[in-house]
Amino acid sequence: MGNKHGSLENMERERLIPSSLEQTYGVHEDDGEVKACGCFCLGSIRKKFKGLWSNLRAVVVNSWEVGRSDPRKVVFSAKLGLALALISFLIFWKEPLPDISEHSVWAILTVVVVFEFSIGATFSKGLNRGLGTLSAGGLALAMAEFAHFCERFGAAWDEAIIIISIFTVGSLATFAKLYPTLKAYEYGFRVFTLTYCYIMASGYRTNEFMGTAVDRFLLIALGAGVGLLVNVGIYPIWAGEDLHNLVVKNFFNVANSLEGIINQYLNCVEYKRIPSKILNYQAYDDRLYTGYRSAVESTSQEDTLMGFAIWEPPHGRYKMYKYPWRNFVKVSGALRHCSFMVMALHGCILSEIQAPADRRRVFQDELQRVSTAGAKVLRELGNKVKKMEKLGSLNILDEVLKAAEDLQTKVDRKSYLLVDANSWEIGKPPIEFQDIQDISKTDDNDPFKYHGYHSFSEARLDLGTSRSPETTNLPFAGTNGFHKSLTREFSFKPERMVIQDEGDTYKSASVLSLVTFTSLLIEFVARLGNLVVAFEELSETAKFKAPPAEGRVEEEEVFGFWGRFWRFVKPRDRNDNLLA
Amino acid sequence: MGNKHGSLENMERERLIPSSLEQTYGVHEDDGEVKACGCFCLGSIRKKFKGLWSNLRAVVVNSWEVGRSDPRKVVFSAKLGLALALISFLIFWKEPLPDISEHSVWAILTVVVVFEFSIGATFSKGLNRGLGTLSAGGLALAMAEFAHFCERFGAAWDEAIIIISIFTVGSLATFAKLYPTLKAYEYGFRVFTLTYCYIMASGYRTNEFMGTAVDRFLLIALGAGVGLLVNVGIYPIWAGEDLHNLVVKNFFNVANSLEGIINQYLNCVEYKRIPSKILNYQAYDDRLYTGYRSAVESTSQEDTLMGFAIWEPPHGRYKMYKYPWRNFVKVSGALRHCSFMVMALHGCILSEIQAPADRRRVFQDELQRVSTAGAKVLRELGNKVKKMEKLGSLNILDEVLKAAEDLQTKVDRKSYLLVDANSWEIGKPPIEFQDIQDISKTDDNDPFKYHGYHSFSEARLDLGTSRSPETTNLPFAGTNGFHKSLTREFSFKPERMVIQDEGDTYKSASVLSLVTFTSLLIEFVARLGNLVVAFEELSETAKFKAPPAEGRVEEEEVFGFWGRFWRFVKPRDRNDNLLA
Repeated sequence: MGNKHGSLENMERERLIPSSLEQTYGVHEDDGEVKACGCFCLGSIRKKFKGLWSNLRAVVVNSWEVGRSDPRKVVFSAKLGLALALISFLIFWKEPLPDISEHSVWAILTVVVVFEFSIGATFSKGLNRGLGTLSAGGLALAMAEFAHFCERFGAAWDEAIIIISIFTVGSLATFAKLYPTLKAYEYGFRVFTLTYCYIMASGYRTNEFMGTAVDRFLLIALGAGVGLLVNVGIYPIWAGEDLHNLVVKNFFNVANSLEGIINQYLNCVEYKRIPSKILNYQAYDDRLYTGYRSAVESTSQEDTLMGFAIWEPPHGRYKMYKYPWRNFVKVSGALRHCSFMVMALHGCILSEIQAPADRRRVFQDELQRVSTAGAKVLRELGNKVKKMEKLGSLNILDEVLKAAEDLQTKVDRKSYLLVDANSWEIGKPPIEFQDIQDISKTDDNDPFKYHGYHSFSEARLDLGTSRSPETTNLPFAGTNGFHKSLTREFSFKPERMVIQDEGDTYKSASVLSLVTFTSLLIEFVARLGNLVVAFEELSETAKFKAPPAEGRVEEEEVFGFWGRFWRFVKPRDRNDNLLA
Repeated sequence: MGNKHGSLENMERERLIPSSLEQTYGVHEDDGEVKACGCFCLGSIRKKFKGLWSNLRAVVVNSWEVGRSDPRKVVFSAKLGLALALISFLIFWKEPLPDISEHSVWAILTVVVVFEFSIGATFSKGLNRGLGTLSAGGLALAMAEFAHFCERFGAAWDEAIIIISIFTVGSLATFAKLYPTLKAYEYGFRVFTLTYCYIMASGYRTNEFMGTAVDRFLLIALGAGVGLLVNVGIYPIWAGEDLHNLVVKNFFNVANSLEGIINQYLNCVEYKRIPSKILNYQAYDDRLYTGYRSAVESTSQEDTLMGFAIWEPPHGRYKMYKYPWRNFVKVSGALRHCSFMVMALHGCILSEIQAPADRRRVFQDELQRVSTAGAKVLRELGNKVKKMEKLGSLNILDEVLKAAEDLQTKVDRKSYLLVDANSWEIGKPPIEFQDIQDISKTDDNDPFKYHGYHSFSEARLDLGTSRSPETTNLPFAGTNGFHKSLTREFSFKPERMVIQDEGDTYKSASVLSLVTFTSLLIEFVARLGNLVVAFEELSETAKFKAPPAEGRVEEEEVFGFWGRFWRFVKPRDRNDNLLA
């Protein structure tokens, strides 16, 4: 399994470690009473049992939830149990080969070791293990023969050779394991060391180096065979499919983030207090944040899945020898490149400097169009990846490029709204366009109008000017309360600042921040082109099917009985499992 | 080890997989001749031997390099070899307890299994293994007794109970392994399943469930003891120290990226062709790119190291019970939040839309100052983390905040340079400031002046207007040749565009892109505040020492004989190992 659920693991570890530390160090804050009392009175015991019971119930409920959200876990567990039960019949084997029962333990151990969650991992680990065992066995047998040969020169020679060989083999295999290019075979080297030591140690004692080797090898092969048969034969779980689903999921996540961020920006919804987890880039449950973060953070998960997927034989929809899994990762990388722009857009919402609501309103329609069209492109590409369809004859980027173009034109025509002419050293422009209320389309009922000018000029990089606490209650004046209170203590001494034009400077900065937002959005659109290229490359190399002809009603895939049953058993979207 | 060298691993895997595929599928492009010939002639054999020999030499040279760049790997390998050699003396044990030699294999296997690269990993895995073995052993013994008890009701009962128990235990332990909050104990559950099956299988056959259990357990304990003693006693490798070094390294990496990016921006150095690896966010050897990428990508590595570090006892400079490793990760997270802005700044260099060189020159001094001061803050913080010193009485952000403030003021005063008044719907401003050559400080010898106006107006979002191929040789006209050629095919039909004001739109866009760059830089400075807060928190919780008094000459740490020897053996900076 390895890093399969990397991001999930990290999220969960946060919860887990403190509790494990608690256990280790015996820190139980909430039953301080009990400790203080120092005796076990009946009440506390009952309380403990109650706690135990509710814990147990929680575990059962959670397990049920885990099983429901990803039934593959349940199926996999049952599969392993089945394979073990099948192979453990060997224990009771009596005739015609009584040796089988004696060495049955090897078959059972092999099943446990070979059985991995995905087929790719099973093959990859199985091969590592097989190669490690075989080569170590061969070397150990040869070395043992050599040691026996040397015994002629004195009994100590024999022992010295075995000990020196164990030292040498152990050291070299470990160094090889740490050698960068051999990282992928780490497991193989570990097995190599283990097997070599085992054979040297057990073989020396019984002096039957070759004796049981064949029997053991056959039983290991039998165990591996049963394990593979059950794992591949019954509801196989493919790393490739996981990778495919993960990439699709990332598309939708980024699209949701993009739409959410632009809506929030246009509606001037602000974080009352920016969560410190976002400021420290830790996992945090925020709709906008998790969307792009999951896409950014899935790198190692994708690499792990790809490492397994390339071991998988053609199957299901991936009926191709040497399937181009690498291209899926490449598409996801191109998507990540786009999502960094979404992240930067989110940065504009997190920023101290906030553009006035009125001016945002001026560009509202255009921003909204780019957002909708951009998210549509992402979702369409995501769907194309999901259905493994090529792009149609229509240019998928048409709409979003037109929208970006219109946004750019509008910015160009109205760029006087994006600067503050009051402090220009060349004098003010001819028309008094400072009063943007007249120019912008916002009507008098605009709820944001009231806060329009004064408060925005204060929403700025907090470089240390004092601010009365009352203003922080205005929607934009004290946007990022928490962040600000943090930065304030490291800020300037007010006397060092150029006081006279301070207000203007900040007004200008806040107005200019709208330029940043639009530029980042346009850069996002530009990066979509690269994403489409990566997708085209994927659709070519992976031989995606041609899109259905225009106007044809798309039929839903026909599900058989098992399909319907599966849909019934599994109410949630399967993709959810990966990034739940 | 786990993900210890995650990023490195991913980089290397790229190289590795194709070659392994080559081997698997027998794709050898360069010896096609041999295949075509179909026979082994002497020449080709000699050629092969030559190839083998040069491969072997390359492996030795590379191994030497790996060992030189991180001698810990060599030391660790030798340590494992030593522990194995020590414990393998048990094989030859004869008197007074002959059983010891018989079960010696358990001690040897335990050494291999327990020995992990870092002390934290050793403890964490050792505990997992110990708990798994003990609990599985207890359960297996109890179950075996129960099975024997049930044998009274018929021989088949016995067998049925054993098989059913193996199925149940295997399934449940596997499900628990996949249960999100128990992820950290995955290894323990694996050992649990293994041990349970082993005891059930081997115990049933010999019918001495309890017989050898104690002997085995003692030998396992002996193996674990020797393994721990050697691993902790001789040159211990601490995950905590690795984490510390990694965080320090990230500070310097981001500082280098920041300085490099701003220098490149001001010197108008462009990518002739943006590497597709950058566009797909893959590992790529680019000075600016690797700097922030390594900081962004180290999340999972940090989490792994932290997961191990919390198991380590107080040691060396980390002489504190419950050392706050979590805060190191938090500081690194805050640094990552900053480095996303550095990434966005790099995005401005990668972008299609490029600000004219002349206008960049106008803000050159201010941008340079912010860059230098920002990088200085990062390096100073990095050094503070490295030396484990608190911040001094002087505000570390003073200089960078002043520089950012000056930049903001300049942007404010000269914001007419950042917009293009030609297309304003309200008419042009009073002074003809379009000819920025007069306003900017650039002299006539400026190498960039020639390309000043015309070409920049073309360096823009490529929405499909045709461009003559000649212009792409100008430094800014065809900035991102590769990127552009990719996006062009998905671009607009030219006839749908508003042709008349096209040039102006792009001029405006390119001019406005300077606003984006400065805003992002100022946002970076704002985020530094948060980083300082995270550092302060770390320095408090980890009880960093007070900084040396001002003016005192800092003495270099005094190295003893071994210190000097170590420095001789290890010429490179140790931090390099983590992200080499």
